[in-house]
Amino acid sequence: MRATIIHGTRDIRVEDRPDPEIHTPDDAIVRVTAACVCGSDLWPYRGVRSTEKPRAIGHEFVGVVEAVGEGVTTVKVGDLVVAPWAVSCGECPPCRNGVQVACEHRAAWGGADELGFHVDGGQGELVRVPMADGTLVPVPGVSEPDEPLLKSLLTLSDVMGTGHHAAVAAHVGPGRSVVVVGDGAVGLCGVLAAKRLGAERIIAMSRHEDRAEIARKFGATDVVAERGEAAADKVRELLGGVLADSVLECVGTAESMDQALRCTRPGGSLGFVGVPAGGAELPIGVLFSKNISVGGGAASTRAYLPELLDDVLAGAIEPGLVFDSVLPLEEAAEAYAAMDERRAIKVMLLPERAGR
Amino acid sequence: MRATIIHGTRDIRVEDRPDPEIHTPDDAIVRVTAACVCGSDLWPYRGVRSTEKPRAIGHEFVGVVEAVGEGVTTVKVGDLVVAPWAVSCGECPPCRNGVQVACEHRAAWGGADELGFHVDGGQGELVRVPMADGTLVPVPGVSEPDEPLLKSLLTLSDVMGTGHHAAVAAHVGPGRSVVVVGDGAVGLCGVLAAKRLGAERIIAMSRHEDRAEIARKFGATDVVAERGEAAADKVRELLGGVLADSVLECVGTAESMDQALRCTRPGGSLGFVGVPAGGAELPIGVLFSKNISVGGGAASTRAYLPELLDDVLAGAIEPGLVFDSVLPLEEAAEAYAAMDERRAIKVMLLPERAGR
Repeated sequence: MRATIIHGTRDIRVEDRPDPEIHTPDDAIVRVTAACVCGSDLWPYRGVRSTEKPRAIGHEFVGVVEAVGEGVTTVKVGDLVVAPWAVSCGECPPCRNGVQVACEHRAAWGGADELGFHVDGGQGELVRVPMADGTLVPVPGVSEPDEPLLKSLLTLSDVMGTGHHAAVAAHVGPGRSVVVVGDGAVGLCGVLAAKRLGAERIIAMSRHEDRAEIARKFGATDVVAERGEAAADKVRELLGGVLADSVLECVGTAESMDQALRCTRPGGSLGFVGVPAGGAELPIGVLFSKNISVGGGAASTRAYLPELLDDVLAGAIEPGLVFDSVLPLEEAAEAYAAMDERRAIKVMLLPERAGR
Repeated sequence: MRATIIHGTRDIRVEDRPDPEIHTPDDAIVRVTAACVCGSDLWPYRGVRSTEKPRAIGHEFVGVVEAVGEGVTTVKVGDLVVAPWAVSCGECPPCRNGVQVACEHRAAWGGADELGFHVDGGQGELVRVPMADGTLVPVPGVSEPDEPLLKSLLTLSDVMGTGHHAAVAAHVGPGRSVVVVGDGAVGLCGVLAAKRLGAERIIAMSRHEDRAEIARKFGATDVVAERGEAAADKVRELLGGVLADSVLECVGTAESMDQALRCTRPGGSLGFVGVPAGGAELPIGVLFSKNISVGGGAASTRAYLPELLDDVLAGAIEPGLVFDSVLPLEEAAEAYAAMDERRAIKVMLLPERAGR
């Protein structure tokens, strides 16, 4: 099969790899219909995280089940499935608590499972999925999604569930005012999640008209281009003299966390999902005196998949609009470059053998 | 009048001061029935915070209204009232959001109000209360409380409301497992608050039998004497292999925050109310990977006073049991020493002229 391998900084190659095989009764083999590149994939791409040796990459994909081990009961051959960004068992206490990211048997795409068997990356033609019952979510009644639906299903792997996690952690709900820091795919999905959860005022922070336009489509009532204290002043002005009830931090830098804190009212809630880059420690004195609660972290998109899938299938939300580029899998390197240079918000990759 | 003045490290004196007078239409004068010493009063006492010049001290008191300005409408002369630990207007956005600690006109007992007028400390015979409508809460139907009731009313100034705030921030509720870090008056009240909110398993951390006994009276099902990872192991053992859903951090040191984080399950909630001493910054990486939410901070006890007062008057809770010592106001210095040396959990001070 063909699979995307990262060899080092800015060195992405699509190469021949052995087709995966069933190793345990809980495994499934999935033929990838569509995959994509995540903002967090850019970290090793940019060398922020070093790549010790070549490894398979990609953790977001939709595909069709091609084979299952004898212990798999919730998906069957031919099912269209969405894979969340992390592999989880579904049975340990964290999984039962809906915190699959802390699964006691968690494995990562492109890494290895507990038994030491290789787990393929998502940006390839085929993927062995360990703990398939705990990990995969079948899409009922759909075998060949059209491109808009495929895009929306693909966001449920990560970005839509992650934006939703930020909104839930920030206690977004009817009547609440919301600020979203970050206009990447996750931030945009955070806007959509806030709208879906009933927020009445949603302020997106963006300086890019293409991203601001999607934010407005997703439900943003206002777009703020300012930064720092000027942005907080603008939020206060828009909200009639007060700061926001709920703020979603969807970047992960010290600057974005500072921006989020500046925009949160006393007693408000900050939901953070940006993978913390260095220097983003939380200033406990500010949280103490302003009574700001902070929650979020790595999103258990597996937990949110069923309810978000229902809304995608019903046409209630169309998170797939975050994809502004589609490329064949063979052009994965260009997909990374386009996202790195911010020429694309998010790129969908289509393996040829998926028959599309 | 007589009032407690801090002159410097370990230098507490009860001295003659001018009786306060009404300065604005929103003022009230309260004759103090009982006051007490707070754990946070020990900070300047121990020199952790420096005392630049002598100042009135004390921020917890119950008393009887002796005079009111013409603009005061919610309390009248003769009313028994509870004063929360901070002065708040009751009308600005933070106050209307129930976050009185962030009141835009907030003043501190022993400090000065917005107009620059002195605000008396709580550990004295008389106190001028600015913004009396926003600050004071009358006790309906009681004019001369007996000592047990007086003690419980006095906890509503600060420690009971603060323990309750920790429990609310930690999302304590029916069926949740709870760990309380800290066995001071706030931690003990946190146990009581957790019980009141329906927690079924409440683990108190204590190495002092007198405090552990109160914790058990307040609803603790278990007491753990271990510290560090050994304490987390003990919690895991008591809870059948998992950590706690809700953890209350009621100390404020780096060690106690670390202890609290170690005891929180993935996806669990940490409520913190210990005033942050240095070094207690929150490790964002742990919060991210374990999905632990953190909330709390300075407690708006004014917001909680009505509901907690109802329960005290109904006899449903008796937080006053945290007082294990009662002294005349004139012996305030001994009260500080007893608490500093942990000879007392919490000391109630009784001014003589209150007629008791």
